[in-house]
Amino acid sequence: MSEENIFSKFKEHSIAEFFKKNRQMLGFSGKIRSMTTIIHEYVTNSLDACQEAGILPDIYIEIKEMDKDAGKYKIIVEDNGPGIPKTHLGKALGMMLAGTKFHRYIQQRGQQGIGASGCTMYAILTSGKGIHVQSRYKGKKIECDLSVDFKTNSPVMENVIETEDGASGVKIEAEFGELKYEKSNYGPYEYIRRTALVNPYLKITFKDPYGEVFIFQRSSEQIPKKPKEIQPHPLGITANDLLEMAKREKKFNRISSFLQNRFSRITSSKVNEVKELVKEVDFNKNPSEVVWEEAEKIAKAFKQVKWISPSPEGIEPIGGELIEKSFINVLNPEMVAVIERKPAIYRGGVPFIVETCIGYGGGISQTNKKGEIMRFANRSPLLFDSGGCAITETVKQIDWKRYGFKEFEEEPVVVVVNISSPHIPYVSAGKQSISNEEEISDEIKNAIMGASREIQKYLSGKRREKEKEGRKKVVERYVQQFAKDLSELAESGKPEDIESMLHRMIEKKYGE
Amino acid sequence: MSEENIFSKFKEHSIAEFFKKNRQMLGFSGKIRSMTTIIHEYVTNSLDACQEAGILPDIYIEIKEMDKDAGKYKIIVEDNGPGIPKTHLGKALGMMLAGTKFHRYIQQRGQQGIGASGCTMYAILTSGKGIHVQSRYKGKKIECDLSVDFKTNSPVMENVIETEDGASGVKIEAEFGELKYEKSNYGPYEYIRRTALVNPYLKITFKDPYGEVFIFQRSSEQIPKKPKEIQPHPLGITANDLLEMAKREKKFNRISSFLQNRFSRITSSKVNEVKELVKEVDFNKNPSEVVWEEAEKIAKAFKQVKWISPSPEGIEPIGGELIEKSFINVLNPEMVAVIERKPAIYRGGVPFIVETCIGYGGGISQTNKKGEIMRFANRSPLLFDSGGCAITETVKQIDWKRYGFKEFEEEPVVVVVNISSPHIPYVSAGKQSISNEEEISDEIKNAIMGASREIQKYLSGKRREKEKEGRKKVVERYVQQFAKDLSELAESGKPEDIESMLHRMIEKKYGE
Repeated sequence: MSEENIFSKFKEHSIAEFFKKNRQMLGFSGKIRSMTTIIHEYVTNSLDACQEAGILPDIYIEIKEMDKDAGKYKIIVEDNGPGIPKTHLGKALGMMLAGTKFHRYIQQRGQQGIGASGCTMYAILTSGKGIHVQSRYKGKKIECDLSVDFKTNSPVMENVIETEDGASGVKIEAEFGELKYEKSNYGPYEYIRRTALVNPYLKITFKDPYGEVFIFQRSSEQIPKKPKEIQPHPLGITANDLLEMAKREKKFNRISSFLQNRFSRITSSKVNEVKELVKEVDFNKNPSEVVWEEAEKIAKAFKQVKWISPSPEGIEPIGGELIEKSFINVLNPEMVAVIERKPAIYRGGVPFIVETCIGYGGGISQTNKKGEIMRFANRSPLLFDSGGCAITETVKQIDWKRYGFKEFEEEPVVVVVNISSPHIPYVSAGKQSISNEEEISDEIKNAIMGASREIQKYLSGKRREKEKEGRKKVVERYVQQFAKDLSELAESGKPEDIESMLHRMIEKKYGE
Repeated sequence: MSEENIFSKFKEHSIAEFFKKNRQMLGFSGKIRSMTTIIHEYVTNSLDACQEAGILPDIYIEIKEMDKDAGKYKIIVEDNGPGIPKTHLGKALGMMLAGTKFHRYIQQRGQQGIGASGCTMYAILTSGKGIHVQSRYKGKKIECDLSVDFKTNSPVMENVIETEDGASGVKIEAEFGELKYEKSNYGPYEYIRRTALVNPYLKITFKDPYGEVFIFQRSSEQIPKKPKEIQPHPLGITANDLLEMAKREKKFNRISSFLQNRFSRITSSKVNEVKELVKEVDFNKNPSEVVWEEAEKIAKAFKQVKWISPSPEGIEPIGGELIEKSFINVLNPEMVAVIERKPAIYRGGVPFIVETCIGYGGGISQTNKKGEIMRFANRSPLLFDSGGCAITETVKQIDWKRYGFKEFEEEPVVVVVNISSPHIPYVSAGKQSISNEEEISDEIKNAIMGASREIQKYLSGKRREKEKEGRKKVVERYVQQFAKDLSELAESGKPEDIESMLHRMIEKKYGE
């Protein structure tokens, strides 16, 4: 091939073609992982939709084996969410990078607008047909077959039937190939179990390929808060972010009012502080007139001013009490320590909260699992790609011996870490691994060290308890003889009375 | 927010907006890594273009510090490749998923059509302006400023100057922020050094921010072969691939001739074997009439027929001799073992070749590095995300003690693995980590075990050598005395003569 014609090969491609060729980037690599990815994407969407609509989620999942050797399964996922209207159904499930999530600065499980359409893609690639959908929305039910035109990344709806229906929710039914069901740490069962662990208000029913039905009941009736859009925090915002926001601004016509109203924690006195640092910028001019150099100077000045840390409003951690309750429910450890950190920020003012829960002994000792790490992001379990994940790497860096442990891998200990943020920095579109941003790693480290100290106190307390117990036993050994001797020496008192008196004394000293 | 208006928030997004928000997926996470990513993307493009055009590459890279504290650097990359014509310049460097690489089944370093446009994006996000380009192509030189319109994922060319120019090549000059130069294992210097290691025909000049100039001379004048488009191998091709190819077919109007001409290793007798297995499909009908069920049956039948493994044509490994030469040049180890595996296939007939080179001791001992793994994909160094990479994971699984090593991490050993394929299954668009496909891991394992055995032979030979040496010394200790005694006992011969005779005997037994 010569230079003459290489440019005749120049083409443009759609995002759907890209992910079709690089399906592993969406989590479709390996038969077991692919199945978990499908369950993950649908459950994620259902939970987000229910939370947005203020509905207590009730999700039904069924996996039917069609042809095990060929890896063919039918998967059904049904929720009681608000449903999707006809106008948006195709794009929501059959067009990549379309949806309500990508552009809103809001804490949700999904954040890309790719997942569900990726599942439709995988159905087409492995079974030759798309998915079958029923959506009940505001009194109407729409039922159709849905697939993707890869060339144009656009949805194709066929066999559309519209009827009246009072209920609400989405039901997806589809056949997939190149899958494998396995009740391992990487399969749908474990994914569902962990989802239930950190979403106590969720009821989820799972029928596995052997017909066995598992019901995870909700342990709380508290409807989760609706997610809130969050304003960016000035700390670390980039010049480019600032410039883009300024150019888009329609309501506020001076830089000062724009800054005060579009950012979190910027008060008028803070605007004045910033002004002092960048005297060359006219804060009365219209935001649309801001140029790069000015945006850069303001962004730089932001870093020199002292700010209140970002508002926890809009970030919705699980909450220490609920984690502890769920944890005890599911794993029943001998000792639990929970740490909920304050909101922090990473790269450009993205706020996040780290929570951790460490369980030790008890039910964990019985499972025979040692040094287990359970990772979550916005309450979604992360089962794969643990190698490069900030959570795993941080846990491994902890010097566990400082906290009275042997090696982490040798102890009956489970570490749960959940990160909540309007934007989780995933390593890839497969969303199973969190990028190693320094601020996030630091928070994880502090949270784990805090919880470890509590475990340490408990363990060393237990050790003291044992020593005390030992001393008590030694003393008790002599009580009877001593009571007898004392009674004889004093020539008064019954040995039994003295003995019981001595026991009370010992109990007082060595008892609880 | 109620269900009423959540769908008013429904939007579609461009791939450029997606990667702008998820820049870490392209390798832009952390200041050091971001700088290496930029060098990587431009060098990759230059090498691919030169190889395509049959030019011995000569690349110049310069990194200038502008404002260290702010992380501002100017980067210049210039090549002697064929250049890019005006008609394609904008899209090649300022539009994501556009280019000559994505859709061609061909072994290249780049394969996504994202990298260089990602750099333009990063320049805009961190410096407020795009890149400055000069392209010399077929007697014309075009010079311009280039940026991306994120909303539409389309290039914006400004200040275009066209002149006549006899030379060819591309020169890119751009300012970036949020970078950091470091001469570590993750910085540009190491990237360039490793690139030189596996591309012996490359001359690369690097001027670092301190003004120091490093020239990596080519050690071979052999122009690399032009990459060839490869036909897919029938083993493992999916029903969907087959169906899509059949629908696109314009030249061959019967299924049988389509199969014979569009796939690697399908002869007419092989077509007959397949026919026998799927008698219900009419092989005389037009490929465009194939339906999913038929494609599925043919794909299934493919798996039952015995095939010759894929042709190595079109896959271009480095070659054992060249690796060894480069390796000795750069690291000068005491012992080198090279294994070049035969072509194999993974997921759906994608062919690939694994090469490995293990170096032990010598220059490696002097660097004090222990148990180092150097990963390459199509001759591009992979410096990041080693945790989840198939190469790293496989090396760690090897039982090194079986090969006479202590722990891998304690030995002066460097393992080089290069994977060549028209489609490398990267874990993410950042292209630094290879997905753990079973067939690939197996090949890596076999290659490393093969090379390890050679090292083992050498090491145990060395051990025997040492033992022999020891015995020799013990014997030599007695030679003088024995010669004297013998001369006296026999009452003849000079002790010196007997001694030198004895030395010759010892030399014969214990010498080489």
